[in-house]
Amino acid sequence: MCTADVSALRRASPGIRPVPPRAGDFAIGRYARATLCSVALALTAIGLHAAGEPVKLALMPAPAELRVADGRLAINRDFSIAITATNDERLRNGLARAVRRWEERTGLTFAHTADGAYALVANEKGANATLAIECVAAGAAIPAVGEDESYTLEISATQATLRSANVVGALRGLETLLQLLQSDAEGWFLPAMTIRDQPRFPWRGLLIDVARHWQPIDVIKRNLDGMALVKLNVLHLHLTEDQGFRVESKTFPRLHQLGSDGKYFTQDQIREIIAYAAARGIRVVPEFDIPGHATSWVVGYPELASAPGPYAIERRWGVFDPVLDPTNEKTYELLEGFLGEMAALFPDPFLHIGGDENNGKQWSANPRIQAFIREHGLKNNEGLHAYFNGRVREILAKHGKKMIGWDEILHPDLPKDSVIHSWRGAAGLVDAARRGYTAILSNGYYIDLIQPTWKHYLNDPLPTDTPLTPEEQKRIIGGEATMWSEWVTPETIDSRIWPRTAAIAERLWSPRDVKDVPDMYRRLAVLSRRLDEAGLQHEKNRPAMLRRFTGDKIDESGRRPLQVLADLGEPVKQYQRGHQQPNTTQFSPLTTFADITVPDSASSREFNQMVDAYLFGATRDADLAARLKLQLETWREVGREISSTLAARSPRVKAIAPLAQALVTASEIGLQVLAGNSATPAENGAKAQLAALTLVARPVDAVELPIISGIRQLVAGADLEPRRASLPPAEWRREVEQRAAVPVPRKAAP
Amino acid sequence: MCTADVSALRRASPGIRPVPPRAGDFAIGRYARATLCSVALALTAIGLHAAGEPVKLALMPAPAELRVADGRLAINRDFSIAITATNDERLRNGLARAVRRWEERTGLTFAHTADGAYALVANEKGANATLAIECVAAGAAIPAVGEDESYTLEISATQATLRSANVVGALRGLETLLQLLQSDAEGWFLPAMTIRDQPRFPWRGLLIDVARHWQPIDVIKRNLDGMALVKLNVLHLHLTEDQGFRVESKTFPRLHQLGSDGKYFTQDQIREIIAYAAARGIRVVPEFDIPGHATSWVVGYPELASAPGPYAIERRWGVFDPVLDPTNEKTYELLEGFLGEMAALFPDPFLHIGGDENNGKQWSANPRIQAFIREHGLKNNEGLHAYFNGRVREILAKHGKKMIGWDEILHPDLPKDSVIHSWRGAAGLVDAARRGYTAILSNGYYIDLIQPTWKHYLNDPLPTDTPLTPEEQKRIIGGEATMWSEWVTPETIDSRIWPRTAAIAERLWSPRDVKDVPDMYRRLAVLSRRLDEAGLQHEKNRPAMLRRFTGDKIDESGRRPLQVLADLGEPVKQYQRGHQQPNTTQFSPLTTFADITVPDSASSREFNQMVDAYLFGATRDADLAARLKLQLETWREVGREISSTLAARSPRVKAIAPLAQALVTASEIGLQVLAGNSATPAENGAKAQLAALTLVARPVDAVELPIISGIRQLVAGADLEPRRASLPPAEWRREVEQRAAVPVPRKAAP
Repeated sequence: MCTADVSALRRASPGIRPVPPRAGDFAIGRYARATLCSVALALTAIGLHAAGEPVKLALMPAPAELRVADGRLAINRDFSIAITATNDERLRNGLARAVRRWEERTGLTFAHTADGAYALVANEKGANATLAIECVAAGAAIPAVGEDESYTLEISATQATLRSANVVGALRGLETLLQLLQSDAEGWFLPAMTIRDQPRFPWRGLLIDVARHWQPIDVIKRNLDGMALVKLNVLHLHLTEDQGFRVESKTFPRLHQLGSDGKYFTQDQIREIIAYAAARGIRVVPEFDIPGHATSWVVGYPELASAPGPYAIERRWGVFDPVLDPTNEKTYELLEGFLGEMAALFPDPFLHIGGDENNGKQWSANPRIQAFIREHGLKNNEGLHAYFNGRVREILAKHGKKMIGWDEILHPDLPKDSVIHSWRGAAGLVDAARRGYTAILSNGYYIDLIQPTWKHYLNDPLPTDTPLTPEEQKRIIGGEATMWSEWVTPETIDSRIWPRTAAIAERLWSPRDVKDVPDMYRRLAVLSRRLDEAGLQHEKNRPAMLRRFTGDKIDESGRRPLQVLADLGEPVKQYQRGHQQPNTTQFSPLTTFADITVPDSASSREFNQMVDAYLFGATRDADLAARLKLQLETWREVGREISSTLAARSPRVKAIAPLAQALVTASEIGLQVLAGNSATPAENGAKAQLAALTLVARPVDAVELPIISGIRQLVAGADLEPRRASLPPAEWRREVEQRAAVPVPRKAAP
Repeated sequence: MCTADVSALRRASPGIRPVPPRAGDFAIGRYARATLCSVALALTAIGLHAAGEPVKLALMPAPAELRVADGRLAINRDFSIAITATNDERLRNGLARAVRRWEERTGLTFAHTADGAYALVANEKGANATLAIECVAAGAAIPAVGEDESYTLEISATQATLRSANVVGALRGLETLLQLLQSDAEGWFLPAMTIRDQPRFPWRGLLIDVARHWQPIDVIKRNLDGMALVKLNVLHLHLTEDQGFRVESKTFPRLHQLGSDGKYFTQDQIREIIAYAAARGIRVVPEFDIPGHATSWVVGYPELASAPGPYAIERRWGVFDPVLDPTNEKTYELLEGFLGEMAALFPDPFLHIGGDENNGKQWSANPRIQAFIREHGLKNNEGLHAYFNGRVREILAKHGKKMIGWDEILHPDLPKDSVIHSWRGAAGLVDAARRGYTAILSNGYYIDLIQPTWKHYLNDPLPTDTPLTPEEQKRIIGGEATMWSEWVTPETIDSRIWPRTAAIAERLWSPRDVKDVPDMYRRLAVLSRRLDEAGLQHEKNRPAMLRRFTGDKIDESGRRPLQVLADLGEPVKQYQRGHQQPNTTQFSPLTTFADITVPDSASSREFNQMVDAYLFGATRDADLAARLKLQLETWREVGREISSTLAARSPRVKAIAPLAQALVTASEIGLQVLAGNSATPAENGAKAQLAALTLVARPVDAVELPIISGIRQLVAGADLEPRRASLPPAEWRREVEQRAAVPVPRKAAP
């Protein structure tokens, strides 16, 4: 599946050695295996052209197959286009959007017709057009599951030819083509090559929770643009939650009228989203989470809850009690009407019913419901949930929809045509496939949990050591990144989705053996620019947020150290933020310093990589030591400037001054180690330094400093230095990492 | 009209002396008068609090009357609100938007009710709320011309009370209140004071041309937010042009179907804009430009043009021939149907018919039309135009609309209830008022022409030396900034409108004697942050545009010098850009370096002010000389870095390398002067230096460097230095300016 003309390739930019990111729960062994895949390197960093510097490609997701050729195709104002075979409107519009991005990047204006479209060269095969698109058929107007998305791309010195079976394949190929545009002193060009490409999994999705924090249509549209760039093909809209009912219902209007604060998609807007997605070859799968997570449903229809109302929209975060009453026939009347309405509104054959985290409290507390369970032989609340799902499935089947739900819906009675959406663990995915269900993976793709990109990247739905049979493996059809929205607003959501989701997109599109982490990061940085240009706001909103945060008494030069701190910090991980900022509700402004920081801080990663290279390189590198020292001196100054001068000028900066102080302390310890002048004897010195680092590692207003783990390694390395010469490299690394590790209090087994 | 408790005030931040910006056509005398107005200073820069540093207010537009008191009102999480008298939905929504901005700035969460609204203290007079709003009446749901917009604001240590006659006044007062929020080490607060405020003119507008470059609804909405911040009250939508017909017509659908490339407002969107504007106390006045500027009309209805078709949407910029045929009754049938439809769609009593720049060529060339002129005794094309306007006016009158048009419509036959919109010169405004017409001013407010802010700011519709009688003066009801869109896209339009339009808003709202230019600039910088926070993109889009411009081979550190150059450059002025980039059409990507630069470069202005202070200060200031030198050395390095290293990495940077080279040359000349080591004898040295500066002042891809005029002054000052001691200061300034001036080729009188 993955071949390359390896002879034509060489590794570019050796630079800093690829080293694993620091993280307690990350298995080095697995990482080391990942870096062995030379195919990934071959695909993405190739040397071309005797004349001029080598061209570094940065395709993402990496294509299945790429062969480099000699030569280059110039892109200039004479650029011309031919569309042969199928010339449909969706293709022309996709082409126009793509070519416009080239115009904006290059500043060139390509030829237009009087009616505003790009001029097309006369429709003969083999026309002399710069770009010839041969698309065999239009394909379904609304993208279908498993639709052929393959394409080939041949670029010679005279022409680029894009061939596909249908329009969606052509759209995928256009995105690859856009990523191939290069420039040098001679101008813009495409390197000659051949690409044959198709996805590994047919279901490659992004879930956006528009319910907890409302995300209006513009957020959805720009994220659909981002999805198209990385060849994702499913937008999963999480439309209902305890905190909001976000779609207009004409049959039961109190659902959105009383459940949304007026923040919901009209049905026209839903149609607009579906059309916008379809134009980009993306399906839209709606989720209506029932029977739990349903507070917003029962604000308008309290009689359908399992305990007496009234109910108000939930404003806090967590798992709440309100749950629909499966013993009430009126519940099914509402679902019949509402889901029928939604089945007509959303053309996709799948409809997601959620089904997660029903805590069962209202059912257990309601004698009438417990009596129903006994009378119907349903055993317990789980049996009642299964009964409910069965009734819902009948409704969906009547309306021609297949049911998909979170892994809690897996129950012996669940019919085999349901799809299991695994969120609680990879085991659930394996279990579902073994039991004959089609399944998709989201566990490991929870981008709301602020994990580093490599974790998501190496999370394979079907790893090489999968216990599944080939037949069972076919049932794993893909995965979805999940953007739950407790901690994101329209201003910050892009910075949580992008660019990390591009790595998940590659995992789901590219061959399994494409998993070189450093190369992924290299390409991700380039892709982030393309997303920026496409209108995603993950980069552009941050300086504006920092301006608002710092206030009027801090000018541009004063914001610079704060920007450094914001670039170094990361929001706390997993579900810690709720503990750090416990009073935050749906009403709270998400304009804290944590909201300005982003996951997977690049400057922290680079520093920690330098530390790794310094400690575990073949020899102690004096240049690296000097760079580490310079870096730490800069950060110490940054921290001092913030905690002294700037904190006095802004109440908000004052509130995060302890973080700046932590940066000062951590930098000082790092500098002490590098200077070799720890004041106390080595053993106690290291112990005291590690204890001091543990103290300053405590998050400040939900922000933490990942460089502290790198500095811990410096301390441990210096402390163990006398043993280095006597240990094999792997053993030396193990000892340093063990000494550097933060002691974690033991938890009870789950 | 403008009083202040002057005893409580003192001038804050003397810093650099206020000096006039350098510009050839700027009368120093008038400027000097402007700076004498101490009331303006009093209103905006006041010292409060014995404890702590003085509070600098930055209200914009400045209120009519402000009295400072002792004390401060703390703003913290206990903030509470009461609405007394009228408590209508528009007021509550406006309040919620306003308070939300405070929450986002401060990070505080104020109290909410279960239904999501801000909690209101029980509705009794004199409640203990932090903010009490007493609004006497709701006022018109759709804002009316001349509606009472006045308000008073009393802030004591215990309460802020906002009083107004109606909701629009309360909305204006809320914006003032938001601008008053201050912070120091103790937290957030409002300084105690009393404000009585009302506008000077009732018509304070912003025209947005959505036709030449389409501007979708999001652009309009965020600019309505910006308008609300600076108390503008008229959005003038220029909806039709040669290059596009931007509104849906149900009676004559070919107008938008064939005239817009599918880029038009649906009628639902128009209603959405009107509601959004009304919620902010802003009227929406539509313009349908006829009979000229009408190419897009006749694409779908070629039979209504004055020459045979077919027609295509115009893609170039300029004045074009197509004009409606006033002799064809079918023209009036279309206008009757279409304008009737629009009269129903837009609730405002005014409807703008354009009427400008009809070149008359099609009329002159058409014998049938010339015969019509003779038969109806219309004398000439102007007579025919007046006849046409008369017919249009009848149609408008039938639909209850008053006609407004550009000053070309002024003709002896024009009925006195028409409104003249003056764009060709102040004389037209005076002329219209003398002849009994109501008139508004846009001449001098053409923000598309990239003039510095102070020019617009000092352009008074009714200057102190107006020749009009008091009765005639009443006919001048305001003005409008005009954002013509040849050179702006949704990405750049905000940077052309803001923050400069805020200065025009102040001219139209604040007392005439508020005209201190340096203080205006000080406040404008603060206001620009508020606009940024409100979602305007004038600041946040520029770094993203620069990233796209520089490409993938230039990293963040490489972008820094380019950012400096982009901050120093300005787009060329007036109508020069069309000459500089003559092949630009509606299809061209506006992503050039000129599009990244903004009007009225702050760093250039600051440098030129430093030069002014250095040359014309009482003594030669060694510190200033050192700062100038340091600045020029930095810029020389910036220019070298770009033209050598960076230009080789990007075709687009390469294209603007001559601009960087110009910066190097100009900086070097400045440094020579400051070092006093001009190699040649003084007279020839200065001459050669000025000649060299003239050469490098030529725009590069439509970008120019305003600092070159400052450096010219340095050269002239050094050259004339021996005469300085012998001249009175004004004479000395005159001589230096004369020597520094660029020789302009004589033009024939207009």
